[in-house]
Amino acid sequence: MPTEFELIDRFLKPFARKGAGVVIGPGDDCAVLRPSPGADLCVTTDAVVEGVHFTSAFFSDADIGHKALAVNLSDLAAMGARPRWFVCSVACPPEALARLPAIARGMARLAAKSAIMLAGGNFARADALSLHITAFGEVARGEALTRSRARPKDRIYVTGTFGDAALGLALRSIGRKPGAAVAARQLRPEPRLKMGLLARGFARAAIDVSDGLVQDLGHVAEASGVGIRIDAQKVPTSRTFGDLAANRDLALTGGEDYELVLFVPPARAVAFERACKQAREQVTLIGEATKKPGIELLNAPQLAHTGFDHFGGPASRPRGRARRPKG
Amino acid sequence: MPTEFELIDRFLKPFARKGAGVVIGPGDDCAVLRPSPGADLCVTTDAVVEGVHFTSAFFSDADIGHKALAVNLSDLAAMGARPRWFVCSVACPPEALARLPAIARGMARLAAKSAIMLAGGNFARADALSLHITAFGEVARGEALTRSRARPKDRIYVTGTFGDAALGLALRSIGRKPGAAVAARQLRPEPRLKMGLLARGFARAAIDVSDGLVQDLGHVAEASGVGIRIDAQKVPTSRTFGDLAANRDLALTGGEDYELVLFVPPARAVAFERACKQAREQVTLIGEATKKPGIELLNAPQLAHTGFDHFGGPASRPRGRARRPKG
Repeated sequence: MPTEFELIDRFLKPFARKGAGVVIGPGDDCAVLRPSPGADLCVTTDAVVEGVHFTSAFFSDADIGHKALAVNLSDLAAMGARPRWFVCSVACPPEALARLPAIARGMARLAAKSAIMLAGGNFARADALSLHITAFGEVARGEALTRSRARPKDRIYVTGTFGDAALGLALRSIGRKPGAAVAARQLRPEPRLKMGLLARGFARAAIDVSDGLVQDLGHVAEASGVGIRIDAQKVPTSRTFGDLAANRDLALTGGEDYELVLFVPPARAVAFERACKQAREQVTLIGEATKKPGIELLNAPQLAHTGFDHFGGPASRPRGRARRPKG
Repeated sequence: MPTEFELIDRFLKPFARKGAGVVIGPGDDCAVLRPSPGADLCVTTDAVVEGVHFTSAFFSDADIGHKALAVNLSDLAAMGARPRWFVCSVACPPEALARLPAIARGMARLAAKSAIMLAGGNFARADALSLHITAFGEVARGEALTRSRARPKDRIYVTGTFGDAALGLALRSIGRKPGAAVAARQLRPEPRLKMGLLARGFARAAIDVSDGLVQDLGHVAEASGVGIRIDAQKVPTSRTFGDLAANRDLALTGGEDYELVLFVPPARAVAFERACKQAREQVTLIGEATKKPGIELLNAPQLAHTGFDHFGGPASRPRGRARRPKG
């Protein structure tokens, strides 16, 4: 069996060794990072656990590494932050040690693509494999896109399409194999980093959709003290989704889309759409914020539940006074 | 069963809600933190896992919360960093949810005492309870105490006493109950934050001892390209340790001491000792750095092993070219 130290060596190999703002990287008591002058630091932590967030029946090791980082990058995207550094705490059973280099390669590929640097980490023995990542991004002082600044009449835009990740899961649960495009949405989500940066000049509030569109819209409504009205028919879905899904429920409530929802003041909407077009980024207007509290779904049947809750199962109603320490 | 959101609410309750430099705390996609102008950011991540780092047979829930944060604070202390913020990623089986408020209370008490602020977190379902913390501290630019700047002739000082945590574990393994003072060393380690800050003006290199004194000295020797000579008889131990331990092996190689080792240039040694005395901080001179590579132990028998390795078991020889991404 490799020692903890050999293991760390192997895990580190696929990652870049030097990066901007890294004064001291892996190998000391702490990493030492040098934030940009005047920048605010956006910090998020998220975990993926074997048997809960992934199984090796469906995920390759490289997929696991990709996804563990991607879910954190998606949170940075939702703040409009530029990715800088991350640390990774690995819990691993001895029999899974041999998988770590492949996991690291999947993670390192996305890290390189996203210009984020591994600054440190930790390995601990455990009965199940899990990866806990804390990622850091930067925004100019005061410019982070929060959930709490949406105002009535703000236009609600979304990136990409919804429901494919949940569709893939549903197909698998009935023994059918999803096609490559649908599978990729679940295995290798692409954080909308470019869109987050672009939106910073236009949007007033943002969130990434990880627990279902309607539920995550509810978080913005609550944090901003506004209502939400969306047209369910306008929520964009992929062609495959249209072909296979009998109704749009999964697009409204399915988890793991990792798309962004952006609240843009009416006066900036035209310029925003133009900027997206120039950048070849797809956005779709699906509704607007309102004064009246609550979530109003036009053209939608009554939903059985609004999204995913990690312990309570499907959440049965829009959240009340919940606070989420996704940070 | 509480929902994920109710749970988060309950976990957050014991922690301070507002703190310096926290622009946005728990509840958004990311926490937004405002680093001090000109400061370097020290970042460390460490985990405690049920059945590996703690068992509820010996640890109260409050102990678990304390220890999860303490092991991270000890890394900040070893860099001479002032604690600022931390995030906590919790993996938890549903049947352990009821324990989280007590865990949070133990963690919050140490957080308040150490002036570190919970800025965010994450909850995930898992089969075993584990807490993965990433902690942030600050030092003035370029002033972090690394492992790599020790020079030959530097005096080697240690804080506190060694071996009690390992002694407690050993006593328990043979069915004997350690006394309160010894037990506390294992259950509620006290990170040497004050000493780390004090040392910054004097020491050239530092490390915290978590895996055994000799092994951790080896990390400094390797990172700095120096040798180490220490007098085993000078390694300070508690009175209880002297009464119960047949030899000093556990003080030299036992894990979880969470004391600091400080490398102080000869010219600053007198002033350093005076400053420690004024601050009522106990330090002990145990040896010095040398030109000749390797670790020389005076007045010590041959050790069976040098310290703890998380996967390979007891490490059987001083580390070669190991790199630890403790960061």
